[in-house]
Amino acid sequence: VELREIGEFGLIARIRDRIGVLASQVYKGIGDDAAVSFLSPGMDLISTVDLLVEDVHFNRSLTCARDLGRKSLAVNLSDLAAMGGTPRFALISLAVPAETSVEFIDEFLSGFLEMGGNHGVSLIGGDTSCSPDRLFISVTLLGEGKREKLVYRDGARPGDDLYVTGTLGDSLLGLHLARNSSKLPSSQDEEFLLRRHFNPTPRVQEGRILAERSLARAMIDISDGLYSDLRHICEESHVGATVWAEQIPLSAAFRAKVPVPSDFQWQWALKGGEDYELLFSASPEKAGEILIQTRAWPCGVTWIGKIEPFSHGVVIRDRQGAVDPAILKGYDHFA
Amino acid sequence: VELREIGEFGLIARIRDRIGVLASQVYKGIGDDAAVSFLSPGMDLISTVDLLVEDVHFNRSLTCARDLGRKSLAVNLSDLAAMGGTPRFALISLAVPAETSVEFIDEFLSGFLEMGGNHGVSLIGGDTSCSPDRLFISVTLLGEGKREKLVYRDGARPGDDLYVTGTLGDSLLGLHLARNSSKLPSSQDEEFLLRRHFNPTPRVQEGRILAERSLARAMIDISDGLYSDLRHICEESHVGATVWAEQIPLSAAFRAKVPVPSDFQWQWALKGGEDYELLFSASPEKAGEILIQTRAWPCGVTWIGKIEPFSHGVVIRDRQGAVDPAILKGYDHFA
Repeated sequence: VELREIGEFGLIARIRDRIGVLASQVYKGIGDDAAVSFLSPGMDLISTVDLLVEDVHFNRSLTCARDLGRKSLAVNLSDLAAMGGTPRFALISLAVPAETSVEFIDEFLSGFLEMGGNHGVSLIGGDTSCSPDRLFISVTLLGEGKREKLVYRDGARPGDDLYVTGTLGDSLLGLHLARNSSKLPSSQDEEFLLRRHFNPTPRVQEGRILAERSLARAMIDISDGLYSDLRHICEESHVGATVWAEQIPLSAAFRAKVPVPSDFQWQWALKGGEDYELLFSASPEKAGEILIQTRAWPCGVTWIGKIEPFSHGVVIRDRQGAVDPAILKGYDHFA
Repeated sequence: VELREIGEFGLIARIRDRIGVLASQVYKGIGDDAAVSFLSPGMDLISTVDLLVEDVHFNRSLTCARDLGRKSLAVNLSDLAAMGGTPRFALISLAVPAETSVEFIDEFLSGFLEMGGNHGVSLIGGDTSCSPDRLFISVTLLGEGKREKLVYRDGARPGDDLYVTGTLGDSLLGLHLARNSSKLPSSQDEEFLLRRHFNPTPRVQEGRILAERSLARAMIDISDGLYSDLRHICEESHVGATVWAEQIPLSAAFRAKVPVPSDFQWQWALKGGEDYELLFSASPEKAGEILIQTRAWPCGVTWIGKIEPFSHGVVIRDRQGAVDPAILKGYDHFA
């Protein structure tokens, strides 16, 4: 069945039927001109939006609809995680070619609602349209937190330690494998790397703990690559930084599969966008508490460097010295 | 200058520079992972999102960038108006072909920010991406209101009066004129009709008065055509309705320019989507107060019919009797 057969209102009715009972903080969900919901008492509103464009952010021949649904919410959850907020409500804007199958949309929604369910997020609204040829997905995520507890990009100070959750580069390598292999994944390593790209796990709980316990002073999620996102923190905080290349956490699967000698593996990991890990700075006084708090996290946390004065610049060092920034640039959509 | 030359971060910096001082209810605007803002005490959150797709909702050869910017916010303001809420914050998702000129984006933003300024709306966040060939604009609008004061689609009751703001059909006729004429508008009538399509005025203040004074029982904005949107109210409220075709308000410009005999002019007006007027039902007891409250509105308010029991169905009557629904259908994006 193609979308054109059920029509726009058929699609909306289908989405609405999937929602079921409204969450406790939702008063009016899908089905009116706008949604009405409310925040917990004393909480501020956190808002973020992320856009996924077919043939720019994803390729329908490589990703399944369910993963795409999950990821379109996960990338937003990752932004909210980087503030240390609690996600609550989502709105989705979907432009879909009329010949798209209803099954594709159903699977997409299953993934989206599954990811939402994992993080207490309710789908409260959206808009649908046909698209002349490509799928466009824009998701708005709303959440809550106390403004004085949330963590921004501008709080880093010289002397702060720099940490990152999880491992870097897996996502880029997963995409590389998917693009360059027509076979199904043949090992657990490959499966892991593909999952890291097509079905990333946002660090929502981790970000919230760092914020609520005032452990992080500046935080960002890594979506453009570590070097590029570290520079965002440094620009907003008016500081510099040193990262020790050999400290960058790499997964065993990444080490086994990345097609470069071990001395250069970290370069891949740094360029790779879409890691959806958290990069944060913390006062050295918090080092002990960070160790204790994060010890049980499955993703782990790794110290990778220090915040420096602004004049120092943003420097990645390996055994040979400072690395040429030209090899570290992140992704620019218009370049 | 093309977008590819300034890049994604150049574009974001450009948008951020245009915002200036943050509004009083904005704590963190553009430039972090997410925005942080807050509602007035005791207020609930109203959220809506609208999508504009090039060659589906607009055509760049017909609309100027400034009007497109204004309209992309206006269509959302209209949704919020239909709840009776107060708009506050906007987020924008833009997928733009890399060869788009920076001037186009600047003009688009000027229109968007101008419309925002007119209604107290701050741009607090967004996402940008390149698009392979078409412009996609998704705008999320957040506002506030008290849930018990807001007006929904499901509040209409048999016996209610049906009213509409402004005049209908102007927008469709304006689009028709733009598509079928290569000349500049040659009369004030044509200019009026074109403006009604390309630069619509959302009825924000009007919707808020109707809600705050508890004058409306059900309300919707007319974006798919009167018949189609009236059916949404009837479905949600589980009621029927009668609309008197001759009561439908038509502008002098519409009457002068619509290419059909006067007896059938209302048919055009009913099919036309994108009117962005408010359709609302009200208890007959409120008729006097509605007259008094709306008398000074430049857009005017017109009584067009009654809410009926569900079994009556949704009926448009002209002098000959009930009209065949087949000629009244609204726009379906996938049909």
